[in-house]
Amino acid sequence: MKLTILGCYAATPRTFTNPTSQILEIKNRLFLIDCGEGTQVQLRKNKIRFSKINHIFISHLHGDHFFGLIGLVCTFTLLNRNTDLHIYGPKGIKEIIKLQLRLANSWTNYGLHFHELESNESQIVFEDDKAIVKTIPLKHRIYTNGFLFEEKMDKRKLNTDAVQNYEIDKCYFQNIKNGKDITLDDGRLIKNAQLTFDPTPPKSYAFCSDTAYNEAIIPIINGVDVLYHESTFLQSEETLAGKTMHSTAREAATIALKANVKQLVLGHYSTRYENISLFKEEAETIFSKVLLADDGRSFDF
Amino acid sequence: MKLTILGCYAATPRTFTNPTSQILEIKNRLFLIDCGEGTQVQLRKNKIRFSKINHIFISHLHGDHFFGLIGLVCTFTLLNRNTDLHIYGPKGIKEIIKLQLRLANSWTNYGLHFHELESNESQIVFEDDKAIVKTIPLKHRIYTNGFLFEEKMDKRKLNTDAVQNYEIDKCYFQNIKNGKDITLDDGRLIKNAQLTFDPTPPKSYAFCSDTAYNEAIIPIINGVDVLYHESTFLQSEETLAGKTMHSTAREAATIALKANVKQLVLGHYSTRYENISLFKEEAETIFSKVLLADDGRSFDF
Repeated sequence: MKLTILGCYAATPRTFTNPTSQILEIKNRLFLIDCGEGTQVQLRKNKIRFSKINHIFISHLHGDHFFGLIGLVCTFTLLNRNTDLHIYGPKGIKEIIKLQLRLANSWTNYGLHFHELESNESQIVFEDDKAIVKTIPLKHRIYTNGFLFEEKMDKRKLNTDAVQNYEIDKCYFQNIKNGKDITLDDGRLIKNAQLTFDPTPPKSYAFCSDTAYNEAIIPIINGVDVLYHESTFLQSEETLAGKTMHSTAREAATIALKANVKQLVLGHYSTRYENISLFKEEAETIFSKVLLADDGRSFDF
Repeated sequence: MKLTILGCYAATPRTFTNPTSQILEIKNRLFLIDCGEGTQVQLRKNKIRFSKINHIFISHLHGDHFFGLIGLVCTFTLLNRNTDLHIYGPKGIKEIIKLQLRLANSWTNYGLHFHELESNESQIVFEDDKAIVKTIPLKHRIYTNGFLFEEKMDKRKLNTDAVQNYEIDKCYFQNIKNGKDITLDDGRLIKNAQLTFDPTPPKSYAFCSDTAYNEAIIPIINGVDVLYHESTFLQSEETLAGKTMHSTAREAATIALKANVKQLVLGHYSTRYENISLFKEEAETIFSKVLLADDGRSFDF
């Protein structure tokens, strides 16, 4: 997986910072997560091909997480897109986009599919042969979901030396990769473990923005490779965090610790702080594996 | 008047160019004209104070002219604005903004007033003691207005030498500035022209974007100091201009010539052209006073 942060600051677009948007690449598929104003320009700056985005996940209908969506939908039309686009987001998102298209007397020249979310339980919203995406119900001022992206287990890897030694014909390779044992012409049974290596372990990524401290998400995100958790505030603004239903860096780290995640990435910083390294310092008092998101930064895992 | 171009390119925001938005300053009042995506950032880059914007004019509901509006409306709330904001634009604009505020479960903490336009005749949409704004009905794929901004005539300027010579008391100065003659204590009548200078002639600015070639606007914009007229295409793309209801540089210049304007400013360039100086060259074959808009460029007049 490769995570590219297009924007990770709270509230408003500014000269040098952008509201929330991320690109997650899973096995050559690009998933766009949230789409604040300016996302199109950030995609261009980060040299991400628009045509490779087929699925967009919107956490909630606060502007800093989706005001760039309508523009992107229209730009796809101008770029002569013809492949389907799927948008996953809270109920109401379809009405917002369609109203604007209708009043502009225009429609997309590609299939535009909305998958509106209303459930307060975690649910599967996307699945194909490579990945599965589930919602992570969050606790915010309006209906909000995080998203859990899980790679599916690859097939087993062929041990080419072993299959040559046993002179096994190519036509059996697919079965072997699928985990099957092989009976040779002389009747010997060769166990699959002798013919294959374990596949690369599948990775997982959990996106949690925006949310108050919420232990209910721990079972859903337990053990993920990377957790992006919002930390709008530092603990010194704990009261404000509570009032606005956001988290502090300390709270994000506490969730990471309790959910036994492998890596925490912080983001959604309030623009009141001049130095985001304070977030890392605070979180590291609780949990050691902390990285800071920043616009244009990428994480390979 | 001072015109600041925040963005003047057609279609989509790109890394180094922005969709349509302009700030017109008339006697310390700021009028925002159109509000493409990224306008907030362009306002910051051009060091324009958000709090001085009280009136926003939207030409039409194509995204490159208003997708930045909802974000700006929300940012005003975050900036604790408390003065009223007036938005002038096509019918439907209120529904778009209010739907998004409703779904975000938020409202502005300042008065938000919509002035929806439907008329196909030029009409006065704003007037105070300094300026008057009228619509310029344009010809485009959807209902579109340009806007004519006219300064009001200033009061006459006091000739301080003259009033001192006649020993006229200060209490009469306001009447003199208003154009009144004065009768001295000895009975002499002093004509106003002897006590005042002519005021600075009022300026006018016409904003015309987007539109097909449309001679119907000539009587409305006749003799303006500055005409901003879209030139999405060059004459070589005349057919495409006709089909999309846009103008070529040559057509913009023809309108400027026939309307006897003092200065033409071109803009709304299609991003297919790498060198915008071609627009100036083409327009100058018809009309000599041509300037090119570009993002961040200002014009004082």
